[in-house]
Amino acid sequence: MLAPEGIIRLEDDRVVLLDQRRLPDDEVELVCRSAAEVAEAIRTLAVRGAPAIGIAAAYGFVLAAARGEDLERACSVLEGARPTAANLSWALREVRSAPDPGARARELHAEEVERCRQMSAHAAELLVAGSRALTHCNTGALATGGQGTALGALREAWERGLLAHVFVDETRPLLQGARLTAWELEADGIPHTVVADAAAGSLLARGEVDCVVVGADRIAANGDTANKIGTYPLAVLADRHEVPFYVVAPSSTVDLEATGGAAIPIEERDPGEVTTRFPARNPAFDVTPAELISAIVTEAGVHRAPYAASLARLVAA
Amino acid sequence: MLAPEGIIRLEDDRVVLLDQRRLPDDEVELVCRSAAEVAEAIRTLAVRGAPAIGIAAAYGFVLAAARGEDLERACSVLEGARPTAANLSWALREVRSAPDPGARARELHAEEVERCRQMSAHAAELLVAGSRALTHCNTGALATGGQGTALGALREAWERGLLAHVFVDETRPLLQGARLTAWELEADGIPHTVVADAAAGSLLARGEVDCVVVGADRIAANGDTANKIGTYPLAVLADRHEVPFYVVAPSSTVDLEATGGAAIPIEERDPGEVTTRFPARNPAFDVTPAELISAIVTEAGVHRAPYAASLARLVAA
Repeated sequence: MLAPEGIIRLEDDRVVLLDQRRLPDDEVELVCRSAAEVAEAIRTLAVRGAPAIGIAAAYGFVLAAARGEDLERACSVLEGARPTAANLSWALREVRSAPDPGARARELHAEEVERCRQMSAHAAELLVAGSRALTHCNTGALATGGQGTALGALREAWERGLLAHVFVDETRPLLQGARLTAWELEADGIPHTVVADAAAGSLLARGEVDCVVVGADRIAANGDTANKIGTYPLAVLADRHEVPFYVVAPSSTVDLEATGGAAIPIEERDPGEVTTRFPARNPAFDVTPAELISAIVTEAGVHRAPYAASLARLVAA
Repeated sequence: MLAPEGIIRLEDDRVVLLDQRRLPDDEVELVCRSAAEVAEAIRTLAVRGAPAIGIAAAYGFVLAAARGEDLERACSVLEGARPTAANLSWALREVRSAPDPGARARELHAEEVERCRQMSAHAAELLVAGSRALTHCNTGALATGGQGTALGALREAWERGLLAHVFVDETRPLLQGARLTAWELEADGIPHTVVADAAAGSLLARGEVDCVVVGADRIAANGDTANKIGTYPLAVLADRHEVPFYVVAPSSTVDLEATGGAAIPIEERDPGEVTTRFPARNPAFDVTPAELISAIVTEAGVHRAPYAASLARLVAA
């Protein structure tokens, strides 16, 4: 697995990121010297994945503080880079209220690595031996700075000998599955097959998938979960074929102020990511209703329906 | 709309096709001088769409007959080019048993144009005024040599003032929606928006789609329908959101020898169409169970469940 510091790190006066736009062809680092440059890296997906953009934003705040920038403005620019992920504003609140933002940001990163380890261990318990899992988008080291959320769980299951195969949705329009998740699985030697997003349904219909495991960008108080566009159809199909559908995400993803999925802002990205030749629309996320989710796994454990109660207990803890 | 002869035509000693692999950027014709060249054009999707490949194969047979080729072998090569579409073998049987294959092939093409007109008229009756339709793949002039099946129905609905908007699934991996359907809709001035296949579910969830209209490559005796990969998830999502799901296809698509979806051969195409960098799988079609289909529309009219009875009547007629 990639070392956490390989994805994102804070150096004296800069944040250094592995530029995910260039993967899998090139492994190139991107250097950001201001909060605005970090925000631009987040906006253009040089770094992506809810936990990873939280860390990147925290490091971006540290740059702003060190440079004596207007911190109100720096937070606003960083928070505006992506509207859906809950961790982003959470991480900014954490560093902003800390006496030493740099120390707190590095601590947040280390905590994220530890949270990934914990949630992966909890989630791996849910998989039966020989599991063929389907996943969507990228939820690995690249998305978290740790071993991953959903992909971290699959890594842990692989190490425990429980995982037989991973089907990877290519995840249009930006192909985070076909570019990033496959790249991480290859690096770990985990057997995998990339499929078009539209092919996942027939894999489920043919009985070739034992569980669907995905991450989350924001989880509402009732358990409704916003994640990469295409997650909701997988949940509907998994439900139809009685295949368990697991969400793996840190507790910082839970936003109790969002009472349900309708309260989660859904980012509309540039239609040109889909096609520049014809009119297009490009919602980046969709909402999976809680009723379709078999379990939500955080660093604290496995949470089951009714989620209003289990998530409230989680956040209160 | 494109003139039918613009897509595919038989000239003295050659079949001339609009090369759909080059659209929408270039409008280039491909000339085939033998059955083998037509089979290669079908296999590589220079011409595609179940009705259109039936016509192309019939014209390919005519070339073989004119050149004094081994007709048994020519049929086998043409039929082997794509395994899923029922029209291909049907069209070959028709020309093979005709005293004048050239006349019969041209007649088949003219009949296809007329069938498209008829099924479009029947299907347009199902749409309510102001309909926002979702479609998948390409089922228009490019796919049929006529006005289209599902897209023909949408054209007809547009002319009748019933259609407000068409959402077009991009249809990975080969983007027949984003390249071909959008190109046809643009030519006709019909308002349209391309979306990633994975985004269709959230459009349905948000109530932005009033009906889903698709074509078919083969329909089994019980109504189970094979169509472009990604059709089945749309049917499941339409069912969940109580949006009607219509299949529009010529009666030649119905294969009573296939008792159900499991009997329909599903073409697995080159995984390199998905990605050449990692292991991949590329099923070209999926099967939508009859229970999810609101109506099947052919040139003969609108057929409803139970399809075993309505399709048997159709074929017997």
